[in-house]
Amino acid sequence: MARAHWGCCPWLVLLCACSWEPQPWPQRTYLPVTVVNTTMSLTALRQQMQTQNLSAYIIPDTDAHMNEYIGQHDERRAWITGFTGSAGTAVVTMKKAAVWTDSRYWTQAERQMDCNWELHKEVGTTPIVTWLLTEIPAGGHVGFDPFLLSIDTWESYDLALQGSNRQLVSITTNLVDLVWGSERPPVPNQPIYALQEAFTGSTWQEKVSGVRSQMQKHQKAPTAVLLSALEETAWLFNLRASDIPYNPFFYSYTLLTDSSIRLFANKSRFSSETLSYLNSSCTGPMCVQIEDYSQVRDSIQAYALGDVRIWIGTSYTMYGIYEVIPKEKLVTDTYSPVMMTKAVKNSKEQALLKASHVRDAVAVIRYLVWLEKNVPKGTVDEFSGAELMDKFRGEEQFSSGPSFETISASGLNAALAHYSPTKELNRKLSSDEMYLLDSGGQYWDGTTDITRTVHWGTPSAFQKEAYTRVLIGNIDLSRLIFPAATSGRMVEAFARRALWDAGLNYGHGTGHGIGNFLCVHEWPVGFQSNNIAMAKGMFTSIEPGYYKDGEFGIRLEDVALVVEAKTKYPGSYLTFEVVSFVPYDRNLIDVSLLSPEHLQYLNRYYQTIREKVGPELQRRQLLEEFEWLQQHTEPLAARAPDTASWTSVLVVSTLAILGWSV
Amino acid sequence: MARAHWGCCPWLVLLCACSWEPQPWPQRTYLPVTVVNTTMSLTALRQQMQTQNLSAYIIPDTDAHMNEYIGQHDERRAWITGFTGSAGTAVVTMKKAAVWTDSRYWTQAERQMDCNWELHKEVGTTPIVTWLLTEIPAGGHVGFDPFLLSIDTWESYDLALQGSNRQLVSITTNLVDLVWGSERPPVPNQPIYALQEAFTGSTWQEKVSGVRSQMQKHQKAPTAVLLSALEETAWLFNLRASDIPYNPFFYSYTLLTDSSIRLFANKSRFSSETLSYLNSSCTGPMCVQIEDYSQVRDSIQAYALGDVRIWIGTSYTMYGIYEVIPKEKLVTDTYSPVMMTKAVKNSKEQALLKASHVRDAVAVIRYLVWLEKNVPKGTVDEFSGAELMDKFRGEEQFSSGPSFETISASGLNAALAHYSPTKELNRKLSSDEMYLLDSGGQYWDGTTDITRTVHWGTPSAFQKEAYTRVLIGNIDLSRLIFPAATSGRMVEAFARRALWDAGLNYGHGTGHGIGNFLCVHEWPVGFQSNNIAMAKGMFTSIEPGYYKDGEFGIRLEDVALVVEAKTKYPGSYLTFEVVSFVPYDRNLIDVSLLSPEHLQYLNRYYQTIREKVGPELQRRQLLEEFEWLQQHTEPLAARAPDTASWTSVLVVSTLAILGWSV
Repeated sequence: MARAHWGCCPWLVLLCACSWEPQPWPQRTYLPVTVVNTTMSLTALRQQMQTQNLSAYIIPDTDAHMNEYIGQHDERRAWITGFTGSAGTAVVTMKKAAVWTDSRYWTQAERQMDCNWELHKEVGTTPIVTWLLTEIPAGGHVGFDPFLLSIDTWESYDLALQGSNRQLVSITTNLVDLVWGSERPPVPNQPIYALQEAFTGSTWQEKVSGVRSQMQKHQKAPTAVLLSALEETAWLFNLRASDIPYNPFFYSYTLLTDSSIRLFANKSRFSSETLSYLNSSCTGPMCVQIEDYSQVRDSIQAYALGDVRIWIGTSYTMYGIYEVIPKEKLVTDTYSPVMMTKAVKNSKEQALLKASHVRDAVAVIRYLVWLEKNVPKGTVDEFSGAELMDKFRGEEQFSSGPSFETISASGLNAALAHYSPTKELNRKLSSDEMYLLDSGGQYWDGTTDITRTVHWGTPSAFQKEAYTRVLIGNIDLSRLIFPAATSGRMVEAFARRALWDAGLNYGHGTGHGIGNFLCVHEWPVGFQSNNIAMAKGMFTSIEPGYYKDGEFGIRLEDVALVVEAKTKYPGSYLTFEVVSFVPYDRNLIDVSLLSPEHLQYLNRYYQTIREKVGPELQRRQLLEEFEWLQQHTEPLAARAPDTASWTSVLVVSTLAILGWSV
Repeated sequence: MARAHWGCCPWLVLLCACSWEPQPWPQRTYLPVTVVNTTMSLTALRQQMQTQNLSAYIIPDTDAHMNEYIGQHDERRAWITGFTGSAGTAVVTMKKAAVWTDSRYWTQAERQMDCNWELHKEVGTTPIVTWLLTEIPAGGHVGFDPFLLSIDTWESYDLALQGSNRQLVSITTNLVDLVWGSERPPVPNQPIYALQEAFTGSTWQEKVSGVRSQMQKHQKAPTAVLLSALEETAWLFNLRASDIPYNPFFYSYTLLTDSSIRLFANKSRFSSETLSYLNSSCTGPMCVQIEDYSQVRDSIQAYALGDVRIWIGTSYTMYGIYEVIPKEKLVTDTYSPVMMTKAVKNSKEQALLKASHVRDAVAVIRYLVWLEKNVPKGTVDEFSGAELMDKFRGEEQFSSGPSFETISASGLNAALAHYSPTKELNRKLSSDEMYLLDSGGQYWDGTTDITRTVHWGTPSAFQKEAYTRVLIGNIDLSRLIFPAATSGRMVEAFARRALWDAGLNYGHGTGHGIGNFLCVHEWPVGFQSNNIAMAKGMFTSIEPGYYKDGEFGIRLEDVALVVEAKTKYPGSYLTFEVVSFVPYDRNLIDVSLLSPEHLQYLNRYYQTIREKVGPELQRRQLLEEFEWLQQHTEPLAARAPDTASWTSVLVVSTLAILGWSV
């Protein structure tokens, strides 16, 4: 079913009432050209709902694997609503249709959705259920695709609806897909390939044995591990493809039992070499049997008939799998053993990831040098800049494209979370504004992610102060010494303290794990409450920021390896070793805010950058970049210690003595 | 049923095999004199279990209200096992009996339990269930008293047993009580009294109206709130008694509905004045109907038959109440609206709590002054010291006894968590050792809790370093500025950083809420993961420490009020205002480790102590104490800034320049 953009009403000029509705929405009486007519699709969807006896149908924003980036054929919520933001849930009843999304997307949703849709400015299942209770009659059925609700999300809908006389109904055929029909983009079908041994930390056989050994040691003696996240299967078999934007994965599940390995994927996508690499012609415990992707639910259900216990990570398993396994046959952890193992990189993986960061620094430095020369000419915009950044990365060895959509944001645009310029809509870079670049690459040896904020002219005192406080946050967390097994959540405030001190803060997380040619946001490592404890060998980003609405945005992001710390008294302590190697903008640093310890740390870091990246620039005859690097890593001069604070101590002390000695 | 201490075998001398068991436990072949013979009680308990067709019976360490301190008649686990430690769960099967407790109590449990009992050195339900699965046959029933398992604990047993073919069975008659019989201490029966208005923040009528207004605003429109925690009922009605050690509470439940107030307690304990204070002779929405304590389960069950929704805080509700309310009639939050409201003190409550801390400081200072004179004489021990501390507190206005058992610990004893001396077993205080005092009082206006660590001789360099790092932790957290609604868990590491830096740490939490003549450990305020977010008006302790096994222990604990912070840029920020007013031991402070900011903070705090406590000491003619206070709050002299670190910055900088300019 095709749909057309509304052509009737120029954006912000004509008041074009929603004439196909008896009552126009009071809050929107014009229609921007950017809206999509969804009347026909909604009518068709409601027919499908009627066939299934549903009062409502939930359309989530995810795919069957909780991927961060989803394929076009999975963009059901975007297709049915017109709203293309990456987060937001739609619910359709027989009379109404509504979308719930967070503040990042309110404007976009209002611009893209037609009058069939209500916008709700809340998130989570509770407001959706509250709305449902008023919109659908008692006894009503609420349908959903069980492969699009995680176990947690299903449980929260289920809990919220308990006692309400409304019932959740799992329908494995996706109703939006039925309506979408032949217009739905095809599922990707490129070859699935094995990584060269040089780029893997262990062979798939070693990894399989490792997981089986964890199964044997597990108290509940699971007989199988089920892997639902695409990165789990990609990691386990050292296989890659490009089904998902920015992530080198392919649609798959793995059921790894004590005596067999069953990989659910499209068999036609494996070359004979890859099939032989997987030992797929045999049936022993070290042979990978490839079964059709679409068979996974039935196969799990059949396997679960036996005397088995299936170990799942609940965070990445969808209700569609969960509901076919009897509860007593489930062994649940938040994250699967593959997720947990993958989080800690072995020494080869560490070396690979570090190497990719050196080359990545070369690409970023090339771009920064180029900007320094070209921005003053007034010829660079955010979009062309992002393209050039991607091009420079693409020229690096082992490059396999960007690891996410480059955030290239000038001036006030940098204050918008998740802003990315488009060819049509972008801002010129200027020496009068700050510029934020958050970008990363996929390389066969590692995934990178780095953010730098620069100013080529004269920053304001407030910009310098905010930048320096963000930098102090980055340094304070990076140099923190903390006990082994501390959770990131417990220490992330060190990245915020210098900002908090002045009444400033940032609204996003402080960092996330990162993979070896896997996810740029690799769970479960990071600083949020649902991240696991820090351990030696993990990699995480450290990325405090500050955003001044309508003016500018600052973020300083590095990737760091968790390493053992040497402490004065013996103990099991950890700290971070930063592996991103691009200097900060000295034009924005207010040295007077830095303590001796900060300066010492910074100059040591600059020394490391010189040692790591300098030779690489020289080897590649990037002499202008080498020169730039030298200048930008000059040790920062230690200012004389701020005597003001010492003076005030003395004054307070003296006053106190005087005040009490009379 | 009585039981005797074993008299046969002198402690650590005779090898006295457990002759009443066919096979002595290999791990324990002697019996200390401290053990209790539990053979007869166990036989009787097993008879009761047989009557109920149980394979196992769980005996938790709690009472029906999750009280921190429990009455003697509730010490079922201690009575049946002989082990009197405050934490530990017992499980009895037809053949075995076992206790699970944490490392604090291993030695004590080994000394107190006879050979009928196995000691398991683990905690949590998982190891208990793992043991049960090997000890009881398939199809076996595991009995428990539903008033002694919280909802969470019940759920975790239930989950762990799922699919195991063993079943939990709720038995409302406690089987240990049946065996205990007439030997069981009686339930307290002292009068329940109303607090004078001068000591309450609001009338009970205002509090009832406040909770009802929260019910009306609640999305799920509860018709009633059920209060299970004794402090909830005590707070709501401004009633107190002394059923529980250290806590001024009485056994009770409250069912506050939209049209009635039902207080479940022993009616005979209310005087006619108190009954009239409660409007208990009428039946309107502002009349308190007193029903018998033992009727609560039946009454809730009967109420739940109607078209009602009962709002509970799951953290303090036992399974015995939970299981009689149909799931769809439950409105659950982690903490009840009373717990949440009580956590934030209004301005009158704040003033009351602060006032109690000034008087409490007088008592502690009197004791410290006395120690300074008497410890060198060699006549003070931990126990007599604790008694004197309690005596000084008892002499303060509005005193109502200690708020917990005074921890008075000298030398290596201070390294033991939760150590308290006894008349029989204590250590002499000495000028050669550190001394830790953690104590608090109950006053009609507030509850206090403070820890100071002192040394009257020459502390070692390591003791001074550790003390100063603990002090820095206390200061860093106390002066932290953080956004409103930050959770304590996110910031508690600031109390640890200075210790972590050197490879030191402490194994306990960093602080807890505190009440107005209520709990000394008042949830849900504090720095742990299950504490709620910080808000203006909350009180919390801040108490980092350091413990060197076999040598010494340090803890510096203050109570602090959460207040608004003034920041350079406007925003909603909070910080702490310390309301404990006893100076730290300057003999233990290594000033060279303190930054100018630390010194400034410390001297400002000392100035506040002088202003708050000085006049009170003078008013009471405590002139020696006044003199002592002046000496101990002399401003600490600012040392010249440590130029070493600046020098090293310059050296590193210079080296870096040289290294790269060739």
